[in-house]
Amino acid sequence: MLIKDYYPAVLMASDEDELERLFDPRSIAVIGASRKEGKVGHKLLSNILKSDYDGEVYPINPKGGEVLGKKLYESIEDVPGSVDLAVIVVPAKIVKEAVQQCGEKGVENIIVISSGFSEVGKVEEERALVDEAEKYDMRLLGPNVFGIYSAKSDLNATFGPSDIEKGSIAVLSQSGALGIAMIGKTAQQYLGLSAIVSIGNKADIDDVDVVDYFSQDDESEVIMIYMEGLEKGQEFMEKVEDLQEDKTVIVLKSGRSEKGATAVASHTGSLAGSDRIFSSAFKQCGVLRAENLKEAFNWSRAFSNSILPEKDKAVVVTNGGGIGVLSADAAEKHGVKLLDDQTHLKETFEEVIPPFGSTKNPIDITGQAGEEEYERSLRRAYESDEIGSIIGLYCEAGGGDAWGGAKAIKKVYEEYGDEKTSVFTFVGGKEADECVQWLRKHDIPAFKDTYECVSALGALYRKKRYMERKKEKEELKEPDIPLDEIREIVKDVRKDGRLTLREDEAREILDLAGVPMAEGEVVTSLEGAIKAAEKIGYPVVLKVVSEDIVHKSDAGGLALDLENEKEVVDAYQAINSNVRKKYPDAHVKGISVAKMLKGGEETIIGGSRDNTFGPLVMFGLGGVYVEILEDVEFRVAPIGRKEARRMIGEINSFPVLMGARGESRKDLNALADVIYRISYLMNEVDGIAELDLNPVKAFEKGKGCKSVDVAINLKRR
Amino acid sequence: MLIKDYYPAVLMASDEDELERLFDPRSIAVIGASRKEGKVGHKLLSNILKSDYDGEVYPINPKGGEVLGKKLYESIEDVPGSVDLAVIVVPAKIVKEAVQQCGEKGVENIIVISSGFSEVGKVEEERALVDEAEKYDMRLLGPNVFGIYSAKSDLNATFGPSDIEKGSIAVLSQSGALGIAMIGKTAQQYLGLSAIVSIGNKADIDDVDVVDYFSQDDESEVIMIYMEGLEKGQEFMEKVEDLQEDKTVIVLKSGRSEKGATAVASHTGSLAGSDRIFSSAFKQCGVLRAENLKEAFNWSRAFSNSILPEKDKAVVVTNGGGIGVLSADAAEKHGVKLLDDQTHLKETFEEVIPPFGSTKNPIDITGQAGEEEYERSLRRAYESDEIGSIIGLYCEAGGGDAWGGAKAIKKVYEEYGDEKTSVFTFVGGKEADECVQWLRKHDIPAFKDTYECVSALGALYRKKRYMERKKEKEELKEPDIPLDEIREIVKDVRKDGRLTLREDEAREILDLAGVPMAEGEVVTSLEGAIKAAEKIGYPVVLKVVSEDIVHKSDAGGLALDLENEKEVVDAYQAINSNVRKKYPDAHVKGISVAKMLKGGEETIIGGSRDNTFGPLVMFGLGGVYVEILEDVEFRVAPIGRKEARRMIGEINSFPVLMGARGESRKDLNALADVIYRISYLMNEVDGIAELDLNPVKAFEKGKGCKSVDVAINLKRR
Repeated sequence: MLIKDYYPAVLMASDEDELERLFDPRSIAVIGASRKEGKVGHKLLSNILKSDYDGEVYPINPKGGEVLGKKLYESIEDVPGSVDLAVIVVPAKIVKEAVQQCGEKGVENIIVISSGFSEVGKVEEERALVDEAEKYDMRLLGPNVFGIYSAKSDLNATFGPSDIEKGSIAVLSQSGALGIAMIGKTAQQYLGLSAIVSIGNKADIDDVDVVDYFSQDDESEVIMIYMEGLEKGQEFMEKVEDLQEDKTVIVLKSGRSEKGATAVASHTGSLAGSDRIFSSAFKQCGVLRAENLKEAFNWSRAFSNSILPEKDKAVVVTNGGGIGVLSADAAEKHGVKLLDDQTHLKETFEEVIPPFGSTKNPIDITGQAGEEEYERSLRRAYESDEIGSIIGLYCEAGGGDAWGGAKAIKKVYEEYGDEKTSVFTFVGGKEADECVQWLRKHDIPAFKDTYECVSALGALYRKKRYMERKKEKEELKEPDIPLDEIREIVKDVRKDGRLTLREDEAREILDLAGVPMAEGEVVTSLEGAIKAAEKIGYPVVLKVVSEDIVHKSDAGGLALDLENEKEVVDAYQAINSNVRKKYPDAHVKGISVAKMLKGGEETIIGGSRDNTFGPLVMFGLGGVYVEILEDVEFRVAPIGRKEARRMIGEINSFPVLMGARGESRKDLNALADVIYRISYLMNEVDGIAELDLNPVKAFEKGKGCKSVDVAINLKRR
Repeated sequence: MLIKDYYPAVLMASDEDELERLFDPRSIAVIGASRKEGKVGHKLLSNILKSDYDGEVYPINPKGGEVLGKKLYESIEDVPGSVDLAVIVVPAKIVKEAVQQCGEKGVENIIVISSGFSEVGKVEEERALVDEAEKYDMRLLGPNVFGIYSAKSDLNATFGPSDIEKGSIAVLSQSGALGIAMIGKTAQQYLGLSAIVSIGNKADIDDVDVVDYFSQDDESEVIMIYMEGLEKGQEFMEKVEDLQEDKTVIVLKSGRSEKGATAVASHTGSLAGSDRIFSSAFKQCGVLRAENLKEAFNWSRAFSNSILPEKDKAVVVTNGGGIGVLSADAAEKHGVKLLDDQTHLKETFEEVIPPFGSTKNPIDITGQAGEEEYERSLRRAYESDEIGSIIGLYCEAGGGDAWGGAKAIKKVYEEYGDEKTSVFTFVGGKEADECVQWLRKHDIPAFKDTYECVSALGALYRKKRYMERKKEKEELKEPDIPLDEIREIVKDVRKDGRLTLREDEAREILDLAGVPMAEGEVVTSLEGAIKAAEKIGYPVVLKVVSEDIVHKSDAGGLALDLENEKEVVDAYQAINSNVRKKYPDAHVKGISVAKMLKGGEETIIGGSRDNTFGPLVMFGLGGVYVEILEDVEFRVAPIGRKEARRMIGEINSFPVLMGARGESRKDLNALADVIYRISYLMNEVDGIAELDLNPVKAFEKGKGCKSVDVAINLKRR
């Protein structure tokens, strides 16, 4: 059933459906259709004609004549009917003219297959195409793409392989070549596609548009993306977050090895390598990130064939001990929990397995198991209330019955596959491979390797857990922060020609943002320092306040743990004299007097900005954990307190905050509140490039936390 | 050429060659040969007869008659000639009788296929078989195995698949079923085998024996082991360490998810989960541990087809950008370094790639590349002096020429494959898969996935690095430690009915072992305490010495940082009074007075004992690093100072010891010396079960390290 049958006509006209005619055109023109075999313009037309597409197809070539039994129109003008979609395969230099002609004809969507634009530096020429298309209100896919395949309209408008397996996986590839190779691979492995789109240079239609379309396409259950880069990170996240439960996005993001290119001056900034942020953002919005192509394929298979597990615990049913143990190992690795309730396992399986078998999980139905044994034991597993999912294994040892196993699996899968999650593996030679292919042909998630099979089940569980988190997702409430005042401070710093805030300025922002800080103030006289120290209470810290002195400790501009007036006097004078000697020209705004905080666990809370995803917030334990172990978590801002609390729990050294060293449990809610406020600040005040609260001392539960030091840098304009 | 042609006759008679006739028998008897198809005793005989084995084959069955055109002897006695190898496939209860008859006949080796022994609890019955075999000086493989395949004698004496691809991979499987499935898989993927052995219950012949045999077998270059458990860990390590450079051991060890079963009382012990120790031991002796079956296969292919790389830097030659980026990601993941010398890359490839290609690594020879382009660019890569290895990729996009690529690869590989490491991937559909299979058939390491291909190259590099380390391996010198005196102390503790050493005892052992400790002594009077404190120098620590008080701090039995006589007096009295109140019945040996050490980085050095590998030594940073992050390294003891130094460098928090926090670099040599001494102690004094030096304070370079606290537990008898 098509989307348009669902929605009222008024909705159809909205932005959200403007790609409908791209994937389901009533008529297509192929501009640059060629009579020469081997040419892209020939292969593409041939693929369209070979597919079961039942709309009109108009090949266009100024030379005229016939191609593949079709009349060649000399120009799109000459086409008798209207054209929903035009595919352009002419040389780069005449593409713009073709786009214009399409506009005149009233085409809705165009695909520019031709390359030779921004990918070879011709940015202007590419921009001109989009401008031209916009004039006529057309959407443009490409340039530099291999076309699209759409199961909905049985249309293969690509110059890739002509055989495509129909199914529920929508593929979006940023690389043309890899996309075509993927079509070949999916057909070879009976992975059914609902659509495949090459987005190439993304001059107009981009990832976000296509994901948006797939989100409304009933036939697409899995959206598998090969991504090299992403422009609208936050929009992409929103689209994915809004997907319905039965749709899953799997991304293979390449470029892991590239380091973030932006210059960074803070801890937070230096740790936010762009690839790491992709991982964080994906986790945050429920995208499953595959490590390699094979994993992306395996996961896509599992999601397109299987339902999400409802309950946690999995059971392994196997005819061999070795692969059973291997799958248990894989389960641990991929976060799949195995059922351990021995009583239940015994009750469930004892009657149906032979005497030499085992009812311990993995359930060993022995090497003699054939169709009957597989059917009986799997049926028991499906019918158990405690078992959340099933891993069915077949090991091709001498004397076994692979086809018996496969037939049993097909039978019970058809009965129960919609009620309980199950995945299967056949390990062995030719016969095992054939059984896997046969099961795949019947839309049963079957694999050739236990590890890959369990990895796919692990992905299903990750999605289940994400959906659970999503259900309890908090409404984002805005904290009561006077943003205008903060923006005013930022503006003043800029006016002053600086990008780095002084301590007094940074302190004021934190104060306005409601972030607790070690008590303190900036003074300009010895008297003021003594007064401040008495007000704050000893011990105190003295520190020079000057935008010209970055390394305050090296400059002798810092004195810790001052316990009385005398020490404050000495320190005040020493700092002044040190600074005057070392930085005679520095503009000194004063000296900050702050409470010296004892005890508490040092953490770091930071904010930074990513090219793709925008504002970020970071949390970690202080010192070595951040600097050496890089044990920190990121989120794309803004986030609520609950999400901030979850983030705290995800660092490796989290047990430290829970009192694992025999100390008290720290005030996690107070930390979460600060993270929440900083995330809001980063999202709202976009002049701030980087912000480090380092350290933030976390005290015992109920006693809050306090930021000891703060550094804020502004964005370069 | 056979082993026996190499070695003089006298060597042939030695222990080391006693398995020769198992893999290369002149004659075989199959006891339990059956006329019924489908029976193991039929399939096995049929496989022997189908293989090109040219020795004598004697089927034996009391019923007599004929089977598969061969006379059935009623008993092994009746066989006219001598029998080198007997394969026993009779029911468990009559196996012993068969073994005896083999002995009488003068058989050299027997394989007991039959199951129903220790794997189902019949340990006695299994022992009886070995006893019987030993009487006649026979070696026994099994019971509970599927037999052996040996390329050397063209013998397939298994009941698995009859088609086996000949090659240089020797497979050893502890699981019968998985072993058979592996035969199927290897044939399916053109992975050539030199041998396959099922070792089953390992009643007599075990992993170590078989590895020993393969180590002398010219045809086996890769030894691939599926291992569930290992008994003689240290012997196994020695065998593997002694292998020649051209042999590689790849192990798929299952049971990762099982926790170590022994009760543990120390940090070292609790961190030494058995699987973790397997990983450490494998790394130490050069075994490559695969994570799953597919990885083990891929690595085996790379090692059996390719030479080890001589130089570090790899180059990627690709016809598609997407798979190029994916392979660069995989390279980072798998520790393969890509050549980054732009000048050299440009010089090397500029002439041979099209204008739209790229000479940056990955080298993009563009989607139009065919046979000629592949040949030219690969030839350049092989001939470059700077390039250490080659990753050749083909992406099946429209318009490409997969077979052209494959042919070019075959041509250059045949020319250069013995001179430089190279691996290949074809990504795509049917044609790509066929190219991969065709290349594999020609013994070229080809893969279907870039990730797997690069993972295999990573394994080759790991082996190269291991071989480099091995070359510079130190002679193990024994430290000058009076072991007898230490053993005497251990003995005395046992005599006292204890398993935990008191501080004074533990201190004495460390002293004898040459491990530097915070100065201190145990005193029994207040006067003694004061004298000791003065001798040692303030500040000092006082601690109760009693085997009955484990948690000394909780008991009020510990006082830190005492700065003068008064504080020592107070503390001495407080400790005495606390202990008397809380532990009125404790046997108090005295109070230890020790130097309170300030500064230094806290580390932990420990020793423990593993069921498989024996004595272990552990190193890590103290506190949270050990307790929460489990950031520690293990080695099987003994190790030399160099290896200890390497071990220190392998913990994640190592930069802390190098002064990453702005502090001085610590005395790593001093730490390495302590590790070395503890490893020697653990190896020599086997009464010690666990030993914790926690903390060992490491001071700046040149200033040594000192153990502050020590705990030693003895083995239960």
